[in-house]
Amino acid sequence: MAQRLRSRRPVKLYEKLATDIEVTIRKGVFRPGDRIPSVRQTSQHHQLSITTVIRAYLLLESKGVVESRPQSGYFVRQLDAGSDGNAHELRASRPIAVSSEVDVSRLVLSTLRSIGTDEAVPLGSPYPDPNLFPSDKINRYAYGMSRKKEIWGVTDALPPGNPNLIRQIARRYLENGASIDPNEVIITIGATEAINLCLQAVGKPGDTVAVESPTFYAMLHAIERMGMRAIEIPTHAQEGMDLTVLADVLENQKIAACMVMPNFQNPLGFQITDQKKRELVDLLTQYDVPVIENAVYNELYFGDAHPRTLKSYDTQGLVLHCASFSKTLTAAHRIGWALPGRYREQVEKLKFLNTLTTSNLQQLAIAEYLQNDGYEHHLRRIRRLYAQQANLMRTMVNRFFPEGTRTSTPAGGYVLWVELPEKVDSMRLYQLALENGITIAPGNMFSASNAYSNFIRLNYSYAWSPEIERAVQTVAKLAAACAR
Amino acid sequence: MAQRLRSRRPVKLYEKLATDIEVTIRKGVFRPGDRIPSVRQTSQHHQLSITTVIRAYLLLESKGVVESRPQSGYFVRQLDAGSDGNAHELRASRPIAVSSEVDVSRLVLSTLRSIGTDEAVPLGSPYPDPNLFPSDKINRYAYGMSRKKEIWGVTDALPPGNPNLIRQIARRYLENGASIDPNEVIITIGATEAINLCLQAVGKPGDTVAVESPTFYAMLHAIERMGMRAIEIPTHAQEGMDLTVLADVLENQKIAACMVMPNFQNPLGFQITDQKKRELVDLLTQYDVPVIENAVYNELYFGDAHPRTLKSYDTQGLVLHCASFSKTLTAAHRIGWALPGRYREQVEKLKFLNTLTTSNLQQLAIAEYLQNDGYEHHLRRIRRLYAQQANLMRTMVNRFFPEGTRTSTPAGGYVLWVELPEKVDSMRLYQLALENGITIAPGNMFSASNAYSNFIRLNYSYAWSPEIERAVQTVAKLAAACAR
Repeated sequence: MAQRLRSRRPVKLYEKLATDIEVTIRKGVFRPGDRIPSVRQTSQHHQLSITTVIRAYLLLESKGVVESRPQSGYFVRQLDAGSDGNAHELRASRPIAVSSEVDVSRLVLSTLRSIGTDEAVPLGSPYPDPNLFPSDKINRYAYGMSRKKEIWGVTDALPPGNPNLIRQIARRYLENGASIDPNEVIITIGATEAINLCLQAVGKPGDTVAVESPTFYAMLHAIERMGMRAIEIPTHAQEGMDLTVLADVLENQKIAACMVMPNFQNPLGFQITDQKKRELVDLLTQYDVPVIENAVYNELYFGDAHPRTLKSYDTQGLVLHCASFSKTLTAAHRIGWALPGRYREQVEKLKFLNTLTTSNLQQLAIAEYLQNDGYEHHLRRIRRLYAQQANLMRTMVNRFFPEGTRTSTPAGGYVLWVELPEKVDSMRLYQLALENGITIAPGNMFSASNAYSNFIRLNYSYAWSPEIERAVQTVAKLAAACAR
Repeated sequence: MAQRLRSRRPVKLYEKLATDIEVTIRKGVFRPGDRIPSVRQTSQHHQLSITTVIRAYLLLESKGVVESRPQSGYFVRQLDAGSDGNAHELRASRPIAVSSEVDVSRLVLSTLRSIGTDEAVPLGSPYPDPNLFPSDKINRYAYGMSRKKEIWGVTDALPPGNPNLIRQIARRYLENGASIDPNEVIITIGATEAINLCLQAVGKPGDTVAVESPTFYAMLHAIERMGMRAIEIPTHAQEGMDLTVLADVLENQKIAACMVMPNFQNPLGFQITDQKKRELVDLLTQYDVPVIENAVYNELYFGDAHPRTLKSYDTQGLVLHCASFSKTLTAAHRIGWALPGRYREQVEKLKFLNTLTTSNLQQLAIAEYLQNDGYEHHLRRIRRLYAQQANLMRTMVNRFFPEGTRTSTPAGGYVLWVELPEKVDSMRLYQLALENGITIAPGNMFSASNAYSNFIRLNYSYAWSPEIERAVQTVAKLAAACAR
């Protein structure tokens, strides 16, 4: 679909009109059930022949975007196939279509802090349960390494990073069916720094960046850090970013970069199809727009196979792939990496400027663990656990939360996205929950335009317990109260 | 002197003229021995009465800036008191007076990398001899901490940083006679990140920053990272930045910030007087210009007392003080901090955006060491060692290096700044030395305007050995060859 906009043969007038109308619909100008302008109105308004408009409307009807009702005209249909079936399932998002400045970091920081406070039940935590991490093992390796004098120098740790760790990371990709060039890897302070440096390498303050909606706040932080603007693209709860709207945005304004999470997106948890990954890369390649792929959850799939990366479809070096060990192995070591494609040199330089080096000791501890210990075994264990607990959490929410609540269907990762009745203010719910010793992540954290004020994100990585069960029921009660 | 520019009472014409002439002299337009324009020429050129010009020249003479020679006019005197005495001592720098874009990081990175290669003698290293670090102790603490599950969470490490470490840092300042507010401290990834975030908090791309000349490349990196411009202020080898020129620059152009290293400047090694620290802070306060104080060497003094900080003279929150443990305790842990004065909130936010957290494990390991072990004892030991080796290195260089070589007189720290005969290209010398298995730091690393191409920096922190002695003699021979 997206490609057609730029296909070799000239776009016919009626096709252009059909696309324009579909985009306005997807942007939420017309909602499902709305009547779109009559053939006559449209032909006058667009200065097009009646025939052209009719052909456009027929095309839209054939694609299931609109339906004609005798004697009354054309009406918008429910676009999101699959969502009608289950009342509990989320619809696609419809963010406002203009770019906005980003300033979410204060809200996020205060939320993360509250998670740390005393014994709050961490349903709002962005981190997986640390008790599932092989911390002791990693640290025994760290201790072992630390007694080798040579590692206390700093030069080994200089960008791109410690050679042993880079080798281990490259090996890991190979085991997952992706072959990468070890010389492309740049070690960073978690994926946070990787994403920051990649965005800095491709754009400058004031530039506009296209993001999913809702989007992981790490993406918004990177945009905020650079003083850039974010434009939120409608994103389907299972199918991901709307490429029709993205194509329209690329066609009509200057976009410095696109930031996506193709696998197990935070907060929606979807995995986009390989076909769509290819389409996304092709579309951005047509416009020569770099895309930053946040892959921190790729190892946490619920299916049988490791998901493919956007990177694997990239032929032009336009995909800047970022990942880390913080979600799978240890959040305390702050080790991430970037595969910056054609921007490798800039990113390496920016890493050097930004933090000089990443602790050699931390890099080597993880390299030793990856080389000598059971990373895959550990991952299999937590994948199984997360998959079970995803279902548990989803079932609990659907059972106890107020009428009209909808939940995501995570294909991996460890967070659930919950849409509450419109009346619920998730910031207020967050406060009430906190007073009850429970943290949740309010929806505003996931948008530059303050959308999702009636959404929350719940973490299901923590070993299921009566305490967690009680916490979920308490939040459900509080939500019901807010909904009244 | 500087203050007079902005003193309450109106500046008299002859005072203004005297200052203008002194500034042009200090900027190197007139060199010592040069004849300055005659009273008549000046009175015509400036449209001033003969009397005014004569009063200005008398004022300059009384200040020892110029001297009158019967029948021949007024001549510029050698400005740098104390430098005449010893042929081996450095003069004040005279950088070009325009700001320049900064792009030194590639040169620095490649140099640092070469230091890591095989068994090169690390005379070019920016790091102290790691064998002097209490690495085992720190790591035993790290291991101890790592077995406490709670530290594997991440929220404790969130900005501003781990409370225990912050307490220990505040205690350390107190022991050094400076009382700081623990609530001002923000933990960073080494001083590198502290300096970066402080600069980002006070300026934007395109802004101009005043720096010492030569200046530590970490400062230049921060400017390069932000896409800012650097203006290099003449800097005396013992007395530091020329406040007359700085005042003139502040008066005549928009300066976003000033970056200095008042104690044991890298590469010059000077410590500016407390009087001058006060003057510098007062001057910048008059123009409301923030100053970033790089204090990473403060603990490495050769005198009897811990040096005072710029921060201690700050009443307006304009001093952003940055330091780390990398030069005194462990470079492998990458722990630094900032005291950002009135910019604290921005810096805390930028830390969160830039790298999210600093490894909690690393923070706690150092906190434990500071609390339970002999930091002061360790410091006394390395201070004594560095002081001895500073003299050794200086003596060796003055004895073996070619005629016309001049050396700095470090008051602390562990680097010596060496001016070679003008014909010597330090980049070529660096290459030749490397071929002989020796690294040195070429002078170009310390300037945005490619000055100091006949200077090198030598590291004397490594325990003195015949190998190092041979290395110094080899570099001396190579320098002599380059000088021919």
